[in-house]
Amino acid sequence: MRIHKIIGLVVIVLLFIPLLTHYYLTKVGVEEPKSEQDNSPWISQLADIDKLTGADLKYRIEELVRIKYSVSGELRELEAKRQRVQTDIATLNRRLEDAKNEAGRRRNELDRLQISLQQARVAEKEAMERNTPRMGRPKPLPPLRSIPVHPPLNDKSNNRYCNMDSCFDYSFCPLSSKFRFYLYPYMFSNLSFITIPDSKSNGPTNYPYSGPTVEILHQMLARSPYTTRDPNKACIFIILVDICDPQRLSQLRQQLPNWYGDGRNHVILLDCGINFRHLYTPDFFEFFGRSLIASENGIVTSYRDEFDLVVPNWEKAIPSGEIWSQLPPVVPAKRKYLATYLGGEADQFIQIELLKIQQEDPLSFVFQFSCNTVPYRNAKSDENEVISANGDDHKSARNLESYTQKKLSSLCDNDLLRTRLLLDSTFSLIILPSEDIEILSSNILQLRLYESLKYGSIPVAIGTRFIPPFSEVIDWTKLILTIPGSRVTEMHYILKSFGDADLIEMRKRGRLAFQKYFSTIENIADTFIAVLRTRIGIPATPYKDVSSPSVFNDSFVPQKLDSFTVDPEEEENLGPIEPSYPSPAFTRNYSSIFLHKYELWNTYFQPTKLYPYTPWDPIMPSEAKFRGSALGFRPISSGAGGSGKEFSESLGGNLPKEQFTVVMLTFEREQVLMNSLQRLFALPYLNKVIVVWNSPQPPTPDLKWPDIGVPVHVVKAEKNSLNNRFLPFDIIETEAVLSIDDDAHLRHDEIVFGFRVWRENRDRVVGFPGRFHALDQNFGNWLYNSNYSCELSMVLTGAAFYHKIYSYLYSYEMPAAIREKVDELMNCEDIAMNFLVSHVTGKPPVKVTSRWTFRCPGCPVTLSEDDSHFQERHHCINFFTKVYGYTPLLYTQFRADSILFKTRIPHDKQKCFKYI
Amino acid sequence: MRIHKIIGLVVIVLLFIPLLTHYYLTKVGVEEPKSEQDNSPWISQLADIDKLTGADLKYRIEELVRIKYSVSGELRELEAKRQRVQTDIATLNRRLEDAKNEAGRRRNELDRLQISLQQARVAEKEAMERNTPRMGRPKPLPPLRSIPVHPPLNDKSNNRYCNMDSCFDYSFCPLSSKFRFYLYPYMFSNLSFITIPDSKSNGPTNYPYSGPTVEILHQMLARSPYTTRDPNKACIFIILVDICDPQRLSQLRQQLPNWYGDGRNHVILLDCGINFRHLYTPDFFEFFGRSLIASENGIVTSYRDEFDLVVPNWEKAIPSGEIWSQLPPVVPAKRKYLATYLGGEADQFIQIELLKIQQEDPLSFVFQFSCNTVPYRNAKSDENEVISANGDDHKSARNLESYTQKKLSSLCDNDLLRTRLLLDSTFSLIILPSEDIEILSSNILQLRLYESLKYGSIPVAIGTRFIPPFSEVIDWTKLILTIPGSRVTEMHYILKSFGDADLIEMRKRGRLAFQKYFSTIENIADTFIAVLRTRIGIPATPYKDVSSPSVFNDSFVPQKLDSFTVDPEEEENLGPIEPSYPSPAFTRNYSSIFLHKYELWNTYFQPTKLYPYTPWDPIMPSEAKFRGSALGFRPISSGAGGSGKEFSESLGGNLPKEQFTVVMLTFEREQVLMNSLQRLFALPYLNKVIVVWNSPQPPTPDLKWPDIGVPVHVVKAEKNSLNNRFLPFDIIETEAVLSIDDDAHLRHDEIVFGFRVWRENRDRVVGFPGRFHALDQNFGNWLYNSNYSCELSMVLTGAAFYHKIYSYLYSYEMPAAIREKVDELMNCEDIAMNFLVSHVTGKPPVKVTSRWTFRCPGCPVTLSEDDSHFQERHHCINFFTKVYGYTPLLYTQFRADSILFKTRIPHDKQKCFKYI
Repeated sequence: MRIHKIIGLVVIVLLFIPLLTHYYLTKVGVEEPKSEQDNSPWISQLADIDKLTGADLKYRIEELVRIKYSVSGELRELEAKRQRVQTDIATLNRRLEDAKNEAGRRRNELDRLQISLQQARVAEKEAMERNTPRMGRPKPLPPLRSIPVHPPLNDKSNNRYCNMDSCFDYSFCPLSSKFRFYLYPYMFSNLSFITIPDSKSNGPTNYPYSGPTVEILHQMLARSPYTTRDPNKACIFIILVDICDPQRLSQLRQQLPNWYGDGRNHVILLDCGINFRHLYTPDFFEFFGRSLIASENGIVTSYRDEFDLVVPNWEKAIPSGEIWSQLPPVVPAKRKYLATYLGGEADQFIQIELLKIQQEDPLSFVFQFSCNTVPYRNAKSDENEVISANGDDHKSARNLESYTQKKLSSLCDNDLLRTRLLLDSTFSLIILPSEDIEILSSNILQLRLYESLKYGSIPVAIGTRFIPPFSEVIDWTKLILTIPGSRVTEMHYILKSFGDADLIEMRKRGRLAFQKYFSTIENIADTFIAVLRTRIGIPATPYKDVSSPSVFNDSFVPQKLDSFTVDPEEEENLGPIEPSYPSPAFTRNYSSIFLHKYELWNTYFQPTKLYPYTPWDPIMPSEAKFRGSALGFRPISSGAGGSGKEFSESLGGNLPKEQFTVVMLTFEREQVLMNSLQRLFALPYLNKVIVVWNSPQPPTPDLKWPDIGVPVHVVKAEKNSLNNRFLPFDIIETEAVLSIDDDAHLRHDEIVFGFRVWRENRDRVVGFPGRFHALDQNFGNWLYNSNYSCELSMVLTGAAFYHKIYSYLYSYEMPAAIREKVDELMNCEDIAMNFLVSHVTGKPPVKVTSRWTFRCPGCPVTLSEDDSHFQERHHCINFFTKVYGYTPLLYTQFRADSILFKTRIPHDKQKCFKYI
Repeated sequence: MRIHKIIGLVVIVLLFIPLLTHYYLTKVGVEEPKSEQDNSPWISQLADIDKLTGADLKYRIEELVRIKYSVSGELRELEAKRQRVQTDIATLNRRLEDAKNEAGRRRNELDRLQISLQQARVAEKEAMERNTPRMGRPKPLPPLRSIPVHPPLNDKSNNRYCNMDSCFDYSFCPLSSKFRFYLYPYMFSNLSFITIPDSKSNGPTNYPYSGPTVEILHQMLARSPYTTRDPNKACIFIILVDICDPQRLSQLRQQLPNWYGDGRNHVILLDCGINFRHLYTPDFFEFFGRSLIASENGIVTSYRDEFDLVVPNWEKAIPSGEIWSQLPPVVPAKRKYLATYLGGEADQFIQIELLKIQQEDPLSFVFQFSCNTVPYRNAKSDENEVISANGDDHKSARNLESYTQKKLSSLCDNDLLRTRLLLDSTFSLIILPSEDIEILSSNILQLRLYESLKYGSIPVAIGTRFIPPFSEVIDWTKLILTIPGSRVTEMHYILKSFGDADLIEMRKRGRLAFQKYFSTIENIADTFIAVLRTRIGIPATPYKDVSSPSVFNDSFVPQKLDSFTVDPEEEENLGPIEPSYPSPAFTRNYSSIFLHKYELWNTYFQPTKLYPYTPWDPIMPSEAKFRGSALGFRPISSGAGGSGKEFSESLGGNLPKEQFTVVMLTFEREQVLMNSLQRLFALPYLNKVIVVWNSPQPPTPDLKWPDIGVPVHVVKAEKNSLNNRFLPFDIIETEAVLSIDDDAHLRHDEIVFGFRVWRENRDRVVGFPGRFHALDQNFGNWLYNSNYSCELSMVLTGAAFYHKIYSYLYSYEMPAAIREKVDELMNCEDIAMNFLVSHVTGKPPVKVTSRWTFRCPGCPVTLSEDDSHFQERHHCINFFTKVYGYTPLLYTQFRADSILFKTRIPHDKQKCFKYI
């Protein structure tokens, strides 16, 4: 019994102790880190351990193990189940997300549609309210002859006081008709009438110009687009007269079949050389009736202000073509000499004073009043070198005929020496014959002016009343310094006060005026006609737009791409999708004659052509759109302004609504092109896409074209030329053109923001990839640089906005040498455009922010290709600089960003754009 | 033995089982989560449990407990030690950081000093190389009388062909001398010589102008700053003549003591009214000798082009003061009638044609050629209302005197009715007397022109040769439509072709010209003198700079703050700290007469004053600085360009180096001011700080002023006025002025970037806090709006750059009513500046990026204060709009950011700025 008892006790102990021990040990192990101090109860409870039997213990342990197994199994099942549920949840979530996206897309679409609807309603209302007849291009109409000349001239002596109102018959020139002139097909010359060969029959470009310059002038006038062969359709009649014998001239009127009794609307282009003084007899006005006299010469007793015309000297001008290679560069500002004069005897007082000035500062001034010897300072030794004038050319013996002329401003027949000196002179003098105060202009003065402008020596006219050519339209105060004869003592003080920037500005302007108006006989003829046309008040003819033949046959229908995916980031609402809205064109044909006459002639040097719109059209004050001039305006939130949401709904700004045209040049990269086109889907303010197909191969017939909501014109290029990028296609109907490369990845928000920035900088290139020109410090040339930089001077036209006017200027006004260089290298057209625009505006381009770094320098390109590409671009910059005579590029140190970019704003506001 | 054995066994079991059980249970508990599958070895190890005795076990347990105690103690010690070590490390780290910072600061300082040294060297070199004599303000010198008149006049009939070179004696007017005229102190009037009371004795402002307008003109001329009482110092002599009797005029020359035998340099201001035709006798030129005739009237036989002057009508002008309240607003573009004419009989042909036009479109045209009845269409019923002309004023009986004049363009004495009609007319006709083609100008034509401009009706001159006043300097093609008489049949076609923007542009220009040149007799006198001065080629006098008395006594030396902390973020190297470099002033005194004459008269309307520099000075092409014109240029990396580092070292850009002046207005916030000044420490390109002390209390004597490296001038304001912010202080020696509020927290990088942006937009307000004007859609007024917006139209001058020229314009040229409103409300000076600058430039301001949102709308301000402040600002915008006649503010939709902001760039490059 005792053993039994003991065994029983032991078993109980065996059963209990381990469990208890385990229990407390576990408990202590858990509690240990928490309360290290409190371990006395753990030791006291160690006493009662031994209460269970071994068998019980074993059994229980085994049971516990079984339970554990079963629980493990259950857990595994649960885990599997959990995974299934999670998968289900993920699937459901995905579906929910899709649904949400879809809903968002739909809502955006709805928003856009609603805005579009609103805009359409406004447009409709405007169309109803509009009552100004919109003017189109001026159309040629048959001229009227019914209005009597007004007022009748009773007294022939009144010719002395002819003005455009009293002596000119405007009934020959109705406003709505095109300006046309009749050029008498013969010249009234010293011998007799000479019939001039018809230049038109030989084609417009290859005519072999020859004969005396006055004949070439006749031929150039005959080539004008304003000429007509039907005298009944002419507004004015032009006759070239090469004779200055008063007796013979008195017969002139009988020889001209359209004289109408009084020579109305006749322009007599009188080329008298230096003999013009013979002509001014008391009968002068009787010879010429009501006709208008255009001559290099003018004397005060016969020149009728605001009626007669002073024309430039064309004796030394080449017939036509480009003259830039003959012109010196604009810089340096200061040349070897400050001022020079080379000629025969001049007015005694002026001569003495000038020689005094020269004596005081012989390093700055060279004044020579003798035809025998001419001083020329040797560039190296800085000592005077005396060159005999006899070695020079002697071609014109004419200037021996007039003693006065020779005495006053003889040219000394030193053409080469004069040229050499002019190229070395900052200023050059034109000394007016002040002893003969009646002379307002003479052919020798005009020739001196011509040479000064040509060789970049700023002309200084000594004497007040000198009439330079075409002075009714050209602001000569910016081109000539006019110093009264008695101020010659102070001349050097004025000349020295001119800073480098002023000198360069005057020389630059002189060069511009020279190139556009005087450089060639063709230019002189065109300018001459433009002056007359401007005076009569009829707009010029516009440049011809370039036709845009489709690359497809008439019968061929390109295949449509059924559907394509749109980048979800492009879902941002950036503006309404409106119907096509071309920019109103030719609305300022007449008003610009009044408001912009000065700028056309003196700032932009573009008076000979009419442009459909310009970037410098006037802007209305901001209240006008709420006071009677609402047409087309889209103020932000109807004038209340606002941030993101309201901003995205309307264009706002200072100008009425407008759209832009995308022009994309492509060459045999069909899929790249298709992708680019797809990206333009639903782009707000997009008017049209023009793809210039530079490849001779037509597109693959089974190529699938995406439908992007606006017309896509694929224009067949005549030849594979990068100049095609800037052709003024007739189908470009907006002022804004967005030029993009076919592989450019521009996002919609960037484009719309760029468009908004362009609207405030309409005269500039506004775009994304910035570059600059840097000095090659070893050779002093320019280098093209595409590195990351904080100062830019170019924005590449691979992704840039520009005004359509620059298409005309690039294609027709820019020197052809630049376009030829672009074709030669198949490169640099973007540099050429930046040169052109900065040349016209005097401003740098505007760089717009871009999320995506456009054609980064670190991107993978073949190094060799890259290097030759860069070499060509260095070359271009230096070549273009030579053509312009200076580097028009200017630097800019900032970028246009959207106003609230990276700005903390309250919750109820939105940023202008989500990402930029 | 068995029991013993059993007990022994049991004890062993008792000892082992609990421990083993515990061991394994614990182990299982730990391992369980790790490897649930792998539990078979756990069961097999359950076998060997029983090897240790109970005592051992207990001992071991107790030992374990002891070890635990000791380990716990050790752990606590270790923990304490660890904490000590950590503290030490932290202290050391802090010291290290400080040392690093210090080193960085020193290095930055060194960098700066090095750059400064380089710049100083360049500046020194430049100073050596410079050989152009720099011109200062023109100084009055005693005039020379030694130069003979050139050429001598042999024949009095030559007066007919007087020009400035042949008839004007320039020796009276040396260039280096100030322009001065002598005004005869009496008038040659119908009765006899009238001595005019001397206006100067009564003080400049309170003179009670009275008497006939010609006498007021005399008084106004006498007030000119160019007048002199010493005829020996005069360049020209002005005599007012109110008499047109040829017999009496023949005696004129004997009455003038400075006649010099031939009247050289005399200007005869002839006020003949409508009787001028009597005057033009064959002896005309003998009466007047070489003198220059200035008159409202001109006929072709006596007017000498480029010599005589046509002056405006001043009959209806007020003596002086502001006229804006009498002028109609510029908008709406189109008024009730398109074109109107109200007067007596006109030329028969024109009259008939105009009546035809009226018949075709009676809603657009009102042409009335009778003085008896006048039609006026009732605004409500749109029916013709006939108003008798008899009710109007009859003040001038003079115009009965001349039959021809009355017949051709009589005014019908309908002043009020004419005014009413002009206010309702888009265009108004000025019909030239084409039956008398000799008339180039008459007082009635001039009065019509005056009224048209005043009432914002665009003048249309029918007839070609009309000479408007001061036409040698004012480009009237932008102000008047000139339509030849025989084109009257086509007039409506031209008029209708004008779009709203063109109409507003012409009206705006007309208003500007009117206000500046013709509105008051004082303006007419000033313009008259400016025309003569411009012709003679002497620069105007500059505006006086405002003196800047220090707020401190001469003896008082303000206390210096010993040291202050600089924000470590400001440690970025932003540019060299250079010695003071004032902008070169008055360098273009003569060249601007040639190059900018047109713009001064026709774009900026500022020909009467000379400015030390303007924002529109010409810019040199980028190669000029490498080809002879390097003076002052700081090209980035010597022309090679670059990013952050190189950029921060030089200003670069298109212009030479320059600095800016900080102007800070303060009022009794000394500590705020001190903090702001401290923040300007070591700011690159800072020339000087000017604190305008608006409080009547001088600064606390013990206030400690920080030494920030540049002079700080504390200028005592005459009175507490916000207009003081824009005073042209003489101590502002730079073109760029940075206006900041005393509490503005602008960072250095923001300021330097803003300065760089301003350098490209010198004519605009360039700054940080953007605001806009919005339409109040309930009342049609403007509201001032400071909400977050994507379209701005103002940049507040609490933190903005502007050109110093705007200080002059704000203080002297802007209508006084605006400055008075600013003083009245103690508010709106910043809005006034934005109006002024946009008015001058026609451009919106430029907003520059800022890290810190300037005076955010959400910032804590008392709501009531805020509201009244806003109400005042709404009021200001609408009031200023009334004063200008239109709202000059324009919208802008972008912000200037630094070029590489938020752009990923390669490691070897730096951003343009670290944080912006």
